[in-house]
Amino acid sequence: MFARSALARSANIVTRSMSSTTVGRSQWLKDPSVKYVPFQSVNLPDRTWPDKRITKAPRWASSDLRDGNQALVNPMTIEQKQRVFNLLLKCGFKEIEAGFPSASETEFAWIRGLIEKNHCPDDVWLQVLSPAREELIRRTFEALRDAKNVIFHMYNAAAPVFREQVFGNTQQQTIDLAVKHVKLVRQLVDEAVARGDRTNWQFEYSPEAFSQTEPEFAVELCNAVQEAWFAGKDKSKEAPIIFNLPATVEVATPNNYADQIEYFCRNIKERQHVVVSLHTHNDRGTGVAASELGLMAGADRVEGCLFGNGERTGNVDLVTLAMNMYTQGVSPELDFSNLEECIEVITSCTDIPVHPRAPWAGELVFTAFSGSHQDAIKKGFHYRKKDESRPWSIPYLPVDPADIGMTYEAVIRVNSQSGKGGVAYLVQRALQLDLPKKMQPAFYAVVQSISERTAKEITAEDIEKAFRAAYYVGKDYNGRFNLNDYSFATGQDGKKTFKGSITDNGDKKSIEGDGNGPVSALLNALNSTWDGGKHNLEVKEYSEHAIGAGSDVKAASYVQLVDKTSGRSVWGVGVSTDVTEASLKAVLSAASNAAVASDRRYTEIEDIVIGGRV
Amino acid sequence: MFARSALARSANIVTRSMSSTTVGRSQWLKDPSVKYVPFQSVNLPDRTWPDKRITKAPRWASSDLRDGNQALVNPMTIEQKQRVFNLLLKCGFKEIEAGFPSASETEFAWIRGLIEKNHCPDDVWLQVLSPAREELIRRTFEALRDAKNVIFHMYNAAAPVFREQVFGNTQQQTIDLAVKHVKLVRQLVDEAVARGDRTNWQFEYSPEAFSQTEPEFAVELCNAVQEAWFAGKDKSKEAPIIFNLPATVEVATPNNYADQIEYFCRNIKERQHVVVSLHTHNDRGTGVAASELGLMAGADRVEGCLFGNGERTGNVDLVTLAMNMYTQGVSPELDFSNLEECIEVITSCTDIPVHPRAPWAGELVFTAFSGSHQDAIKKGFHYRKKDESRPWSIPYLPVDPADIGMTYEAVIRVNSQSGKGGVAYLVQRALQLDLPKKMQPAFYAVVQSISERTAKEITAEDIEKAFRAAYYVGKDYNGRFNLNDYSFATGQDGKKTFKGSITDNGDKKSIEGDGNGPVSALLNALNSTWDGGKHNLEVKEYSEHAIGAGSDVKAASYVQLVDKTSGRSVWGVGVSTDVTEASLKAVLSAASNAAVASDRRYTEIEDIVIGGRV
Repeated sequence: MFARSALARSANIVTRSMSSTTVGRSQWLKDPSVKYVPFQSVNLPDRTWPDKRITKAPRWASSDLRDGNQALVNPMTIEQKQRVFNLLLKCGFKEIEAGFPSASETEFAWIRGLIEKNHCPDDVWLQVLSPAREELIRRTFEALRDAKNVIFHMYNAAAPVFREQVFGNTQQQTIDLAVKHVKLVRQLVDEAVARGDRTNWQFEYSPEAFSQTEPEFAVELCNAVQEAWFAGKDKSKEAPIIFNLPATVEVATPNNYADQIEYFCRNIKERQHVVVSLHTHNDRGTGVAASELGLMAGADRVEGCLFGNGERTGNVDLVTLAMNMYTQGVSPELDFSNLEECIEVITSCTDIPVHPRAPWAGELVFTAFSGSHQDAIKKGFHYRKKDESRPWSIPYLPVDPADIGMTYEAVIRVNSQSGKGGVAYLVQRALQLDLPKKMQPAFYAVVQSISERTAKEITAEDIEKAFRAAYYVGKDYNGRFNLNDYSFATGQDGKKTFKGSITDNGDKKSIEGDGNGPVSALLNALNSTWDGGKHNLEVKEYSEHAIGAGSDVKAASYVQLVDKTSGRSVWGVGVSTDVTEASLKAVLSAASNAAVASDRRYTEIEDIVIGGRV
Repeated sequence: MFARSALARSANIVTRSMSSTTVGRSQWLKDPSVKYVPFQSVNLPDRTWPDKRITKAPRWASSDLRDGNQALVNPMTIEQKQRVFNLLLKCGFKEIEAGFPSASETEFAWIRGLIEKNHCPDDVWLQVLSPAREELIRRTFEALRDAKNVIFHMYNAAAPVFREQVFGNTQQQTIDLAVKHVKLVRQLVDEAVARGDRTNWQFEYSPEAFSQTEPEFAVELCNAVQEAWFAGKDKSKEAPIIFNLPATVEVATPNNYADQIEYFCRNIKERQHVVVSLHTHNDRGTGVAASELGLMAGADRVEGCLFGNGERTGNVDLVTLAMNMYTQGVSPELDFSNLEECIEVITSCTDIPVHPRAPWAGELVFTAFSGSHQDAIKKGFHYRKKDESRPWSIPYLPVDPADIGMTYEAVIRVNSQSGKGGVAYLVQRALQLDLPKKMQPAFYAVVQSISERTAKEITAEDIEKAFRAAYYVGKDYNGRFNLNDYSFATGQDGKKTFKGSITDNGDKKSIEGDGNGPVSALLNALNSTWDGGKHNLEVKEYSEHAIGAGSDVKAASYVQLVDKTSGRSVWGVGVSTDVTEASLKAVLSAASNAAVASDRRYTEIEDIVIGGRV
């Protein structure tokens, strides 16, 4: 028995028991075919779906409250069901399978409540599931009294695995059973119409485990169901019949399901009166692919659940399907701009988490830790800024995070595998400081030393703090030297004379010096007094840029000083509303760095970041 | 800002920030094509892959320690890397991409350690990644000194999104860059060989973001790389060159990737000297499908990670791919019979959980909560027992849980959506009691009342406890009446006379009665004394079966009594090594139930189960 992940514990899941013996490696490595046989494909060499693409949204049906709910360790309470129902409406679902009213009192009461309290808008279809059994069909009709729009969804078992092992029915018995109960549903609908009930009806039929059913038999069965449903009716005045074709258990590569769907679409009678609906599960991890290829193969409708809830491995994830369409320029006609809200509602009502790597919705799916990825993303954003009207195309980012309610900050995160580009990007986001390229390695080394010391992810906040500490940016981050007040005089030769007072380790000092400009004047003043003139710092690199615009504009200055004695280089940063003052601050920032041995500086900065205090 | 699931918190993941504004519904519901353009497919109308199937295992390469590791919030320590490395060996991997030695000191030291400590068996290839940059290639070679078998994996950016936005290179410049660095790798390999180093070499090249690269250009680039690599060599004596074709970001339905792979396989020169390798990610949730269809399209090799770790949405999940093959009767040539161990090692080293619905490995993927599913599974197991040599085919169970180290107990779990069949199955598993069909609804009602009261999942243990409590089975579960000792005499008329002592609410009583058999004799004795003869219980149903075989055989008896006065029916169960005694105990069990009003009985049982005490 192994301890399971925190996930299992947090979701209150009972740890499954382990057998003490395992199957020998021999079967795994040599011949599982003694036990398992390959899936039998449909013969469809002239398939057309591989040349198709998805160009419009299907009809969507959410089964979150039925297939999703029945697969929970703890099924939802009525309050939770209501929250999910409201969310589905907000996302734009028009067909919602809300339950299985004949299954229990709770389910029955929930459906009654939805109808009686008028929670279902007039343009939304309430779908309910019923087995093909008379007493359960009648009970389901009771639950539906006075509903506005109903999709009555009936299923029975069609696949040989069920016919042979569970029910002991032949193909003909299976057809007879289906037809008999379709007729009952039709009779009850007709009676309701005759009574003058306000309900609009659609009928949906699922040949259970369609993907494991002989394709010819599935068509034969559905043709018989169709005939029974439309018997004596003018089809042109009836809603089309929905044939829902479940991959109840996913048993083959997804191209097989697409072949089955294309075969069904070609062979079902009166295709124009039929809606072909997909219902895939994810046992082989290809439920999304099966639905996508199924749509290319001609289907009109998709059933599934948000974030792939549902029996076992779950139903197909409708968020993924919709996002996949959206990012191909096809409107899914669903709205997931509120993705965080969807995550919150569904995870709290189902007690099933969204995996950190779940497509589109996972915590980690828009993050880049690797340096080269971060660099590419940074360049991609820069490139896009030049012309925001061009199609979205940023390396490693298949969607604009803003479209699903996220900001860019989440994208770049730093661990010990990250690079200079990502770190610089985060500084830029946090402080609007565009570090000169030559400065980036210096600050990156600081971040790496913190990352290696903690062996943990560095947050954007850590990086901001490290930067402030490293270059004494902000009032709580003082170095050895600080500027108090100053004035410049310009001589006849154009030379600047700096006169001013600085603090040196807390002591006020008046200093004075000349230079070609303010920076060199201050530097000369500093060099001549600091430790009795023992220092000889020179400017190696200098750059500046504006932050913001208009009356709030500030200047940022970056200076690299080199100590001519030791050859050591240090960087400094200054920010001020005044350009000159920014450059002076940058010089004192660099000089403060020069005043401490680099090993000790690293430790100081690390202590500030890790200690969480300034 | 929304609170995130327990998952996010437990995995120590920084909650991502939310923008305060979201994109309007208009874009979602009307026209995302203003921002996103559809993927441009390869023109390949004569594709052959949709008629293929996967019939043998590919070469597998694990990237858990490279792509997987670089995508972690907290990259692995060396100890954790070693644990994962050992696990990969145990599962049978022969090609392991263990790191990116030029990326950091840590990575370099880890690779050196693997080589110096001889952790890599002689039949395993150590793969390392390097960008196409001279100093990094040289550094990588330094890391590889004295290795036995090396796959040197070099990549550079080939896709327009990188060429244009990140590097500003033309197609020709990209080819020149690749060729120049391939030549450098070849030169360093030749030098190593000339020195007499013991290392065996393979070369792998990835045109980065292959799936977003113009297919003609990808082929042109790889042909040039191939030519440079084999220049002046006798190819027949060289290992083939590996072309790894990454879907770095998944950007289209998986059939597009298959088309790209088939196109590449048809057009790359000297196919016999080339290994085509797949490397899919899962941004659209179809990474497994893309790899499967890519194998059908002619690829020879697959890179990925266990449980789909890796950048963003992860690399393709190798466990799923392997299990998918295994359950089609194709040996994956990997061994996941130790699946729980794999889960434990990977989740604890990556701090990323396996989702409860992850294919094959998730906590919930072999469980059935729904009554009809449970019933079908129960019948499937029963059907299979008749002939265990037939191929695996159990409803809702695509694999025999025993093959991945699980027992059947995990399969059937009970919540308020579950049915009689599942409950009976669990009783059968726990106590070897095959409840008569007519008894199942009675005990099911007990379980439902507990389930509704707790609104929680009922565990197998709860069900066992509820059953013992409901029918007084086991020494800690005593009802009003208990059997002490007894004897039977048979009269000339064949009538049985029961003489014995019972406890009635703790008081010993001697009772006596006649009947056609032991059960009716005891019942008459009981009726005549109980509350001064006020009761009139009769047998309505009776059945029994053996438990086990040989000298350990026991008998189980089930009796339904009806109270002729009230019409109320009650069930009782008795188990004993003696058949007669089992039936007597069953009668007293039922009589004890008859002695308590049914509402009070439910409460008593619920208290025992929920209170967790007997």
